[in-house]
Amino acid sequence: MNSFGNLFKITLYGESHQDAIGIVIDGLPSGIKVNYDLVYEDLEKRKPKAIGTTPRKEKDEVIFTSGIFNDYTTGSPVHAMIKNENTKSGDYTHLVKQPRPGHADYVASIKYKGFQDYRGGGRFSGRLTAPIVVAGSFAKMVTPFHYSHELIQIGSLKDMTKIDEYLLEIAKNKDSVGGIIEVRVKGLPIGIGEPMFSKVESEIGKMLFSIPAVKGVSFGTGFEGVEMLGSEFNDVILDETGKTKTNHSGGISGGITNGNDLVIKVFVKPTSSIQKTQNSFNTEEKATTEFTVGGRHDIAIVRRVGIVLENAVAICLADLYLIHKAYL
Amino acid sequence: MNSFGNLFKITLYGESHQDAIGIVIDGLPSGIKVNYDLVYEDLEKRKPKAIGTTPRKEKDEVIFTSGIFNDYTTGSPVHAMIKNENTKSGDYTHLVKQPRPGHADYVASIKYKGFQDYRGGGRFSGRLTAPIVVAGSFAKMVTPFHYSHELIQIGSLKDMTKIDEYLLEIAKNKDSVGGIIEVRVKGLPIGIGEPMFSKVESEIGKMLFSIPAVKGVSFGTGFEGVEMLGSEFNDVILDETGKTKTNHSGGISGGITNGNDLVIKVFVKPTSSIQKTQNSFNTEEKATTEFTVGGRHDIAIVRRVGIVLENAVAICLADLYLIHKAYL
Amino acid sequence: MNSFGNLFKITLYGESHQDAIGIVIDGLPSGIKVNYDLVYEDLEKRKPKAIGTTPRKEKDEVIFTSGIFNDYTTGSPVHAMIKNENTKSGDYTHLVKQPRPGHADYVASIKYKGFQDYRGGGRFSGRLTAPIVVAGSFAKMVTPFHYSHELIQIGSLKDMTKIDEYLLEIAKNKDSVGGIIEVRVKGLPIGIGEPMFSKVESEIGKMLFSIPAVKGVSFGTGFEGVEMLGSEFNDVILDETGKTKTNHSGGISGGITNGNDLVIKVFVKPTSSIQKTQNSFNTEEKATTEFTVGGRHDIAIVRRVGIVLENAVAICLADLYLIHKAYL
Amino acid sequence: MNSFGNLFKITLYGESHQDAIGIVIDGLPSGIKVNYDLVYEDLEKRKPKAIGTTPRKEKDEVIFTSGIFNDYTTGSPVHAMIKNENTKSGDYTHLVKQPRPGHADYVASIKYKGFQDYRGGGRFSGRLTAPIVVAGSFAKMVTPFHYSHELIQIGSLKDMTKIDEYLLEIAKNKDSVGGIIEVRVKGLPIGIGEPMFSKVESEIGKMLFSIPAVKGVSFGTGFEGVEMLGSEFNDVILDETGKTKTNHSGGISGGITNGNDLVIKVFVKPTSSIQKTQNSFNTEEKATTEFTVGGRHDIAIVRRVGIVLENAVAICLADLYLIHKAYL
Repeated sequence: MNSFGNLFKITLYGESHQDAIGIVIDGLPSGIKVNYDLVYEDLEKRKPKAIGTTPRKEKDEVIFTSGIFNDYTTGSPVHAMIKNENTKSGDYTHLVKQPRPGHADYVASIKYKGFQDYRGGGRFSGRLTAPIVVAGSFAKMVTPFHYSHELIQIGSLKDMTKIDEYLLEIAKNKDSVGGIIEVRVKGLPIGIGEPMFSKVESEIGKMLFSIPAVKGVSFGTGFEGVEMLGSEFNDVILDETGKTKTNHSGGISGGITNGNDLVIKVFVKPTSSIQKTQNSFNTEEKATTEFTVGGRHDIAIVRRVGIVLENAVAICLADLYLIHKAYL
Repeated sequence: MNSFGNLFKITLYGESHQDAIGIVIDGLPSGIKVNYDLVYEDLEKRKPKAIGTTPRKEKDEVIFTSGIFNDYTTGSPVHAMIKNENTKSGDYTHLVKQPRPGHADYVASIKYKGFQDYRGGGRFSGRLTAPIVVAGSFAKMVTPFHYSHELIQIGSLKDMTKIDEYLLEIAKNKDSVGGIIEVRVKGLPIGIGEPMFSKVESEIGKMLFSIPAVKGVSFGTGFEGVEMLGSEFNDVILDETGKTKTNHSGGISGGITNGNDLVIKVFVKPTSSIQKTQNSFNTEEKATTEFTVGGRHDIAIVRRVGIVLENAVAICLADLYLIHKAYL
Repeated sequence: MNSFGNLFKITLYGESHQDAIGIVIDGLPSGIKVNYDLVYEDLEKRKPKAIGTTPRKEKDEVIFTSGIFNDYTTGSPVHAMIKNENTKSGDYTHLVKQPRPGHADYVASIKYKGFQDYRGGGRFSGRLTAPIVVAGSFAKMVTPFHYSHELIQIGSLKDMTKIDEYLLEIAKNKDSVGGIIEVRVKGLPIGIGEPMFSKVESEIGKMLFSIPAVKGVSFGTGFEGVEMLGSEFNDVILDETGKTKTNHSGGISGGITNGNDLVIKVFVKPTSSIQKTQNSFNTEEKATTEFTVGGRHDIAIVRRVGIVLENAVAICLADLYLIHKAYL
Repeated sequence: MNSFGNLFKITLYGESHQDAIGIVIDGLPSGIKVNYDLVYEDLEKRKPKAIGTTPRKEKDEVIFTSGIFNDYTTGSPVHAMIKNENTKSGDYTHLVKQPRPGHADYVASIKYKGFQDYRGGGRFSGRLTAPIVVAGSFAKMVTPFHYSHELIQIGSLKDMTKIDEYLLEIAKNKDSVGGIIEVRVKGLPIGIGEPMFSKVESEIGKMLFSIPAVKGVSFGTGFEGVEMLGSEFNDVILDETGKTKTNHSGGISGGITNGNDLVIKVFVKPTSSIQKTQNSFNTEEKATTEFTVGGRHDIAIVRRVGIVLENAVAICLADLYLIHKAYL
């Protein structure tokens, strides 16, 4: 349940306030030169820096304990570990009796019978996305594609030049916002993806919905395409490379890459932790009471999560790419 | 790649114009009284009948060859087979050189090196969804939940009382439309779903994106929630059952059911096969040429696919429900 | 639980006395010319013909419903089905109260809560090995290796020229025997097999122990090697092809093929069904009572099971071979 | 490939001479009191101490980074890591050109294209069995069964009272021996094991053949049973608990536990590293040359591997036990 993939397979572990989080990356070909710069550049993109992101400092030093020899992959699993530091565990004990709305506090306490590590969101913490970013960087080393992402809407704002101003206003109101991120992959050949249940959309859908706060995934034009007619939506094939006049299908036909850009839109819900006073059921008082979430949080996690989504997509494509190679 | 699930596991086979399609349903508990009526009622909902659906007749008689003894499941895999009948294979040979836009014809010919069965869409045919419906009916027998679905938008039409009129107009223009379907599950307890990669959203996302024509999946409010603030989006917990004041999260917190209705919205793209003349790359002439898709097709597959999506969701929940039971 | 494999994946269904048994063979490359002769030759080897094998006639006509088009694989799953015929269901009802020693009757009735199909051994029947043979024939079409098997001991007999005489004696005493079969694969390159848990031995071990009546598996010299010293057991490498002077390791080093013949020894226990009067616990009388198994059975199933083991090995190697190709 | 299991799932990483080895143990129920004493007792049994075991000191301190909170499992994966210390990397560089007989040196260099970590056996090192022992200790915490193992033969010696004397003689000759270990599990109910491919024998077979040096696995009487008649081999059921008069089948009928002791015999080949001068192909000189393996090694790894096998069996049973619970 904490593993993903067939050939390129990742296994994630960790909770927010325990000693470390990490990931085992299995199925890497041997002989890949490890691009440490890429790992750190990608992790850097996930760090809180801009307005709207948490003032907490996360020092994400990655410890590679295995699978690499003389800077090349050995063919054995790579294990990447990140230590948890500066975790103030005292902040969280009250959440046991006062589950936060929008969080997994209450369902976790029931599912795990009170034994869950409730500190800092435990296993549900966004912190777990850091190892996914690392695995994604390795996926990029395996696949000869070009990955990017873009924030295309944040709250009601579509003009990204005004984002800081907009988020300062949100912050003033002690509230939060979500957004829509577009992930794009260029350079894909025709033929990646395995029908029926390992279609490109199936694998990416599974992976992206595993990322905390993701509540919507679409390919190409997505939900907005509902108003289009078939004659408009159909992408006309122009030449032997499979290139199409439009790309409403987001680069996928029948679950298989069709030679055009892979385009994915992801809805990230508004950050659940807000400074505003909220109501929630208090399990000790057996009543709905007012409370305020302590600590300092992102008011727009969507501003940092783009690289997570991009790299999560890379993980799926690395797996499908290796499977594809088995049948060449 | 044609299997799905961990404990409740399905394996799908078949192509549109070969002898039969079918499914192996593994992991069923023994001693379940087989509800044949449910199987046929569900299949009936998938059949073309209304305006906008194909005039082709599909006789979906299900042959159960194993896994059932004296009308109860034995604990061994159930194999359900549906014969392909009335398949006019002559209609499709020209598609080899003239791949249809919006279809997998071209990518399939490259991926499978020309050996794919191109007749009637082959393995990409919507016909493969019939065995999924059957497996879903069995999933419903396993899970004590209540499933339903509703068509909430078709093309630009949101008022479903005008659907026939609307589709006649589309048909007159030899065009097609897509739509949005909402699937809803009631009666779920708190605790179904396994983080990290077997969250309710992850498994359902994977499954629904495996259904042909699905290009968008969201949970709860979905993409429309992008304009909401955190204080609006957060669902306030009201009592010990986990019931919330609103249900923007669609009944899932942290990937785990939270005691509220599971609500999923699915975007189904406009039917690719249209009567209108279209352009596409002709692989023999090495040029984009005009052509018309033969045969008679749904102009709104979305009108029939609801039961497929509903039952596909049931398959995911049956698997997660059995896993949940292992930890009670 | 009824599926096996990663890329080349089989899913088995069926019970002895229901309508059909069959197998879904997923992960076949497209464009493989189907060698029907091989399928039928392999199935023929499994049929009872020689002394010591059951006089029951099994007509094993294979129905291929999908995955093949113009005699080539399409890249979609091949479904092979064999109908059950001439099944005398009346013979078996008494087994519910009188479980046979050496059979799964009693454990099945408890595990499946009385809902198991007890007729003819149900899902535990050796009949289920016929579809495995079919899948193995396809595995052979995928892999460029040469497979064979040999019966090297039957009961206490090691000189196979006396087998008929020996078995007639066993039959006269209304008893049965087991044996040891050696499976051999030639032509394997260095490098097939994936440590840690998909070693050649791991996958073949799992597969062979899934075959009814198999109670021992070894590679190379096997258990007899216990008396050897390291200096004797170590296979000296002679040249760049990896060829070794001896082959005590059975062609596998560190779980990976080493360029020598793959050699596997399999112990098949004596057939459980014997004509002799036996004792067993009678669940109605709540006492151990005498009884006689009805019907006519193999007295040496080991005489027929060689092709099953050989083809089961081919299934494992097809999977590992495809995985190997993904990393070339 | 480095993961094993369905619900109780382990993922192994590490190479002998890198920073650390470790294991992720997924699928543990929450609320299990962690028995650290058991972990260290089990690891202690694996340490070299007796005559015939290596004089190298391994300090196996286990670092648990996650999945445990207040000494109870949280339901999230447990990650256990063991640092590699006192590794003399200089000892091994010559093995690149002079692969050792009986080891994976040569196949690894070809499979991994020269990028494998060849130091100390790399990923093929017996050191990797330490994390498996740890995972097995957790498996024991999950399953209410009683596990044990016994060395029943070492080299040609069956009388274990003479073992030290025997091994001193082997050591004097700079040679090594293998042996046979019996693993036994008591207290199993009827019904554990999932036919067809997750039979108790299938899962245990796969797991045990993944342990380095294991070349034979059998259940119950095993290969020695080949000389028995069916009337002798069949275990007569005596009462409702499934108890049988004999236990030739090793506690398993049809792949399912039958209420008797689970009995497994494992052949461990003679240790490959010997002090004696040996021959092997020299890849630089392109000729077979004499050489001597440096370092100090176990001359009877079989004396330490028993706890590894025992715990490996526990891992399989924990998985099957949880699956069994899903169907109660």
